[in-house]
Amino acid sequence: MILDEIASLVSGARRVLLIAHVMPDADTIGSALGLAWALRARGIEARLSCADPLPPDLRFIPGSEGFAARTRTDEELVFAIDASDPRRLGEVYDPEAFATARLVNIDHHVTNTQYGDLNLVADRSSTAELIYEVVRALGVPLDARIATCLLAGLVSDTCGFRTTNTTADSLRTAVALMEAGASLTEVSDGLFNHRSLDILPLWGAAFAAARVSGEIVWTEVTQDLLRKTGVDISAADGLANFFSTLDTTRVAVVFLEVAPGRFDVNLRSSADVDVSGVALALGGGGHPQAAGCQLDGSLAEVRERVLAALQEALQASPAARTPS
Amino acid sequence: MILDEIASLVSGARRVLLIAHVMPDADTIGSALGLAWALRARGIEARLSCADPLPPDLRFIPGSEGFAARTRTDEELVFAIDASDPRRLGEVYDPEAFATARLVNIDHHVTNTQYGDLNLVADRSSTAELIYEVVRALGVPLDARIATCLLAGLVSDTCGFRTTNTTADSLRTAVALMEAGASLTEVSDGLFNHRSLDILPLWGAAFAAARVSGEIVWTEVTQDLLRKTGVDISAADGLANFFSTLDTTRVAVVFLEVAPGRFDVNLRSSADVDVSGVALALGGGGHPQAAGCQLDGSLAEVRERVLAALQEALQASPAARTPS
Repeated sequence: MILDEIASLVSGARRVLLIAHVMPDADTIGSALGLAWALRARGIEARLSCADPLPPDLRFIPGSEGFAARTRTDEELVFAIDASDPRRLGEVYDPEAFATARLVNIDHHVTNTQYGDLNLVADRSSTAELIYEVVRALGVPLDARIATCLLAGLVSDTCGFRTTNTTADSLRTAVALMEAGASLTEVSDGLFNHRSLDILPLWGAAFAAARVSGEIVWTEVTQDLLRKTGVDISAADGLANFFSTLDTTRVAVVFLEVAPGRFDVNLRSSADVDVSGVALALGGGGHPQAAGCQLDGSLAEVRERVLAALQEALQASPAARTPS
Repeated sequence: MILDEIASLVSGARRVLLIAHVMPDADTIGSALGLAWALRARGIEARLSCADPLPPDLRFIPGSEGFAARTRTDEELVFAIDASDPRRLGEVYDPEAFATARLVNIDHHVTNTQYGDLNLVADRSSTAELIYEVVRALGVPLDARIATCLLAGLVSDTCGFRTTNTTADSLRTAVALMEAGASLTEVSDGLFNHRSLDILPLWGAAFAAARVSGEIVWTEVTQDLLRKTGVDISAADGLANFFSTLDTTRVAVVFLEVAPGRFDVNLRSSADVDVSGVALALGGGGHPQAAGCQLDGSLAEVRERVLAALQEALQASPAARTPS
């Protein structure tokens, strides 16, 4: 069984590299750290890598200051955490440097390309839930630090137990993590209550820019708008989730211009529409109800391409009920 | 013990009235219905009362169509559900009509005035958690209908397991309700994904109207704004919770003009500030981190009165840490 194989690889390792995905979120960071602390408890040297800098609001996750954009040097074992394909590891993924190490790919995205020597890829609400199983298989007792890292991943990726893939087992895992000393209040506060007042003008403008086409609602956050409102791009975090709470449409899209002519496309859908296929076809990936990709071009070009692909997906899955 | 006393009262009753509080939310409605279905399973006739009409978005809770603004007639036993004082029962509370019945007050608000013949008032995340204990004490097996009603109350009042009073026991109760057949996905969807596109202009205007004074952020939704944006007052639901996710302030207030010259004042606070005392002093009630009251007057008068009371409360509990 895969968990035993991972435990066996870990037993033979002295140095391990754990890689979080680009544009890191709390699930990749919390999952990598939860596993890192468990490996350290076993006397293993665990280093942490992420191609991008961590957003300041993830600094509450214990050990997050240990991340750096580093590739493999002398580690015998590399874990890719919450990354559906090697491109999601960014520039720290160097096939040549990785050739002499074993690569373990741990991820919960349905679009995962199974690129590891070992692949622990399964349908869970979060990669943190999978790491919880790995930590148990390693025989490391949970402590408050490991538990806090994993609870941050689980609560973040389920949007606080709201996503359609949140199961009774997800809640049972959360209970076990709380029993081990993680504070749900502190984790929720760290994840959800860090919006700056400064975001309000950006959000107001994004609301005003919202447009509807059939069953799709979308909005656009351009470099120009970011300049005008004087906020960092992270101010757009959460916009896609907010738009997905609107009940009159089945798909929500946020076009976020991350650099001139380059758009991060965030897709959200109701339970009866799968947007992961659209994201995959456009070079991205994700989950049935939350996926994304990056596209180059003018806003008009990118918008047209994405909306056309979504219209097609919507036609393939007609509404089960009239939106209320 | 109080649960045994309630079970004993129920054993002698043939007709029961359950009253939800005015301006009903999912906790009062789901809790009343969860108990009603359990009583009906015991062969008891259970009627449901609420002084105000139910918002359409609560119609997904099984049995919610059974509510009407009715006072007691021939019921031997009356349950007041999730109401911190008799005024919260509204016009259906008639002391004369109630004199010959036993009144059981089941509530989780710290400001509860213990006005029942029996009072099951305890610190839980939601009244639904208390009703779960009552249903167990009645010996009624959970079914999917009871479980869905109670899960709606629990998930709603914890804002999806985010409030500071959400415990491991709250999650354990949620797991038990899911095991009994309640769908967390459907309940979350019913509670959180029912915003209309039409709310966007109102929210944008409320964002633009946001003001800060010291550690307090507030915004105002007037009758004039509701007219201008052409939306129902329920479009403001969730604004206070949204403002409470801003990290640069410790208290968030939404002044909502429910009728000309009458304001619903919604208070939210960070974990180190208790706003329930302020709400209580102004004639309202609630929880340490989420409370409210209704005040008559001009917006300027109401705002001045509330902000002064909040400034005082903030001075009494200095910030544990500098807001980030």
